[in-house]
Amino acid sequence: MMASEGGAPVALNERDAVDVLLRELGNDLVVVGDAIDPRYFTAYNEVPGVRPLALIRPRTVDDVSRTLALCSRLTLPLVPQGGATGLARGAVALGGEVVLAMERFAGIEEIDTAAGTITVRAGTPLQTVQEAADEAGFTLGIDLGARGSCQIGGNIATNAGGNRAIRYGVMREQVLGLEAVLADGTVVTSLNKMLKNNAGFDLKHVFIGSEGTLGVVTRAVLKLHPKLASPATALCRVTDYDAVVKLWHRVRATLPSVISFEAMWPEFYRFVCANTPGVTAPLAADDGFVVLIECASSDAAASASDAHAALEACLGTCFEDGLIDDAALATSTRQALDMWTLREGLAIDTLPHFMNFDVSLPIGAIGVFAERCRAALVERWPHAVSVFFGHIGDSNVHIGVSLADLPVYGEDAVDRVVYEVVREMGGSISAEHGIGRLKRPYLGYSRSAAEIEVMRRMKAALDPLGILNPGKVL
Amino acid sequence: MMASEGGAPVALNERDAVDVLLRELGNDLVVVGDAIDPRYFTAYNEVPGVRPLALIRPRTVDDVSRTLALCSRLTLPLVPQGGATGLARGAVALGGEVVLAMERFAGIEEIDTAAGTITVRAGTPLQTVQEAADEAGFTLGIDLGARGSCQIGGNIATNAGGNRAIRYGVMREQVLGLEAVLADGTVVTSLNKMLKNNAGFDLKHVFIGSEGTLGVVTRAVLKLHPKLASPATALCRVTDYDAVVKLWHRVRATLPSVISFEAMWPEFYRFVCANTPGVTAPLAADDGFVVLIECASSDAAASASDAHAALEACLGTCFEDGLIDDAALATSTRQALDMWTLREGLAIDTLPHFMNFDVSLPIGAIGVFAERCRAALVERWPHAVSVFFGHIGDSNVHIGVSLADLPVYGEDAVDRVVYEVVREMGGSISAEHGIGRLKRPYLGYSRSAAEIEVMRRMKAALDPLGILNPGKVL
Repeated sequence: MMASEGGAPVALNERDAVDVLLRELGNDLVVVGDAIDPRYFTAYNEVPGVRPLALIRPRTVDDVSRTLALCSRLTLPLVPQGGATGLARGAVALGGEVVLAMERFAGIEEIDTAAGTITVRAGTPLQTVQEAADEAGFTLGIDLGARGSCQIGGNIATNAGGNRAIRYGVMREQVLGLEAVLADGTVVTSLNKMLKNNAGFDLKHVFIGSEGTLGVVTRAVLKLHPKLASPATALCRVTDYDAVVKLWHRVRATLPSVISFEAMWPEFYRFVCANTPGVTAPLAADDGFVVLIECASSDAAASASDAHAALEACLGTCFEDGLIDDAALATSTRQALDMWTLREGLAIDTLPHFMNFDVSLPIGAIGVFAERCRAALVERWPHAVSVFFGHIGDSNVHIGVSLADLPVYGEDAVDRVVYEVVREMGGSISAEHGIGRLKRPYLGYSRSAAEIEVMRRMKAALDPLGILNPGKVL
Repeated sequence: MMASEGGAPVALNERDAVDVLLRELGNDLVVVGDAIDPRYFTAYNEVPGVRPLALIRPRTVDDVSRTLALCSRLTLPLVPQGGATGLARGAVALGGEVVLAMERFAGIEEIDTAAGTITVRAGTPLQTVQEAADEAGFTLGIDLGARGSCQIGGNIATNAGGNRAIRYGVMREQVLGLEAVLADGTVVTSLNKMLKNNAGFDLKHVFIGSEGTLGVVTRAVLKLHPKLASPATALCRVTDYDAVVKLWHRVRATLPSVISFEAMWPEFYRFVCANTPGVTAPLAADDGFVVLIECASSDAAASASDAHAALEACLGTCFEDGLIDDAALATSTRQALDMWTLREGLAIDTLPHFMNFDVSLPIGAIGVFAERCRAALVERWPHAVSVFFGHIGDSNVHIGVSLADLPVYGEDAVDRVVYEVVREMGGSISAEHGIGRLKRPYLGYSRSAAEIEVMRRMKAALDPLGILNPGKVL
């Protein structure tokens, strides 16, 4: 049994393969046919996809190892799956694969308060890890909207980003140690707790962000940071994108406790202000850019009002120096939540045939990128609506595109227009969502032939039969 | 021509190979015979080693590419070399290799103040990069004693650590983009400037810390941090190692501007106080542990006296809460330098037959490790002197061992005793110095057979002929 290029299986004998899985792994681990719940073959926000040949739900690392060894023997393609909240269809089966869902291998194995580390199993929901860190008097460095349903193994496999990267870095920077299982079932355990360890190649980085194509993440040791105190949150208005960049550099140099720096282009802010019921905009929508700034010292370093005072002082000098035109500082948790609700911008999902893009460019280039991208879309489709927002301190911008008659043109046509501008400007077609299945046709827009050849060599070295998540990334 | 297992070449026809190098690369790039300065074959602090077949000094990335392609054709082993300041003999030829010295491919290519990045060539001295960053209003995240002579390419290839890792991370965390040349001459350019970029595998991490065995680093994009203000420095005394750990967690949670946290065991501090001419110890030497703490806010965030006040306030509450027994805050640059001079501890180099070790363990385990390590040394050699000090916030401890009659036993015997304790306690035989040639026999003390097998697969995938730095790391 082999997955062909397009992902459609050449079914040599699927029934026999499933029988072997059931016989060797047992029906506590293996689920087949109609008993497989549709959530295991449904991408985020989409209709159910292709039912996998089998669903395997390991309880131990040894279960994962035996499953992979068996899939290698059978040349049976396998899709590792965490919470399946990804936006690039990296965790969905394309047809003919088995799905390996990690949810039963969950839980916190250890918190080492002296080392400042937490050791977790891949299937643990992110929020569970955050809460355990919090209870031990620390803060986890990663946070994102899907915290309740995404799993830490998936966060690692996709190198998740989120809203705190300017302070703590992305998921990759949180991982000190990692255990992964290779395609042939070999368990590679490197559960390092040290900040400095130069004993040979740092293998964890091979697996982090490889979206399950080089190995299956089973356990990890994550850094813990000093516990955060309550944050202070503000919105400020500036005239244009260059002023956003100036403000960013001022803020990072004068407000060391900054944790989020999020920009909203005027069209985005106007739209969400007008279309978010129950939220009163703290700053009136006009032609300016609006920036959300949040800061938080560590709990032990600050009194409750310190963050507020520090943010107020910083914004005061920014105003005096002409770096911002206006600002609103949240005076209650409710006001801060409203600011985040606007920034999260769920309102734009109601635009007809809405498409979401996640790209990155050098920070100084993002303003021109947004203009060129909008112009390219309007040139092709004069009625195209595009809105821009994102984690500017991380060089990450999200783009929302709406075309009332999108079904006529197809999503691919829009992808090509947006990613062509990214390519021309030397950006990345994926800032934090990964490549998965959706962006695979465009990998060459951001990676050279030489880079892709190195990726292929690594794939061939670690998964010579190509059974791990075929048709994804490469 | 092939390098054999031990690094000694099977010389098929060395003379012919050198002729081909001279003919195809020209004598501006290629130096042979007595014209090769001994510094190109002398490890740090040691007597000159084996003269290489040839010294190659590229001026461009294309020179590097042509050299590697040619060495591949000739199956000629090659040792990439930066400033050759490493302590693990990773950059020295073992016999029969050519040395590729990167010093002429030097200079700053670009500073992007909006992105907050600096693009540099591999041969640039670290200090030159630091000064360029400083001049542009930023701070580089890496600093180490050899700053004047080490090169940024070597810092990347060895994943250098240093004294600021608790604030900024190690070298790996400074690198946003990288260009490396593969053994076959392929140039892999990934000069990314973005903090978030998940477009396929993150290849830079394959090359960082691989000590020139997987590719030759040619250029890099490094992060720039907000410019640091003048630091404040203090020594404090605590009763035992557990108190050092408690102090570390208090300091990281209450002094966000902390940049260094360095511990000295009593024997170390007593020795350096007694043997460092011209330095008056700010704290008297007794049976306590002495910790050096340095903090510095960003230049724009702080007035000159802020760091001093913050450190004083932090130490004040630590004293009230019984976390420290005594403290001395430097009131002049001279006093701060004296504190660092004691911590750097060059005095211990005067101990007879002095050996220096660089290991890491989970922070909470380092106290017990030091006791066990000292006991194991004394059990074997009752007169053995051992002193301990290091970057405790990074989980990194250095060990100085002196045995008056070392030549009788050999350095290997001491290595085995120390690394055996590291192995028993699950630590790393190399925190920041790398494996190179010196620690290669002990790699298996800190890495499992499965991990080493993955390293070998990566090596075979990227350097199938094994010409890059043979006999190092693996």
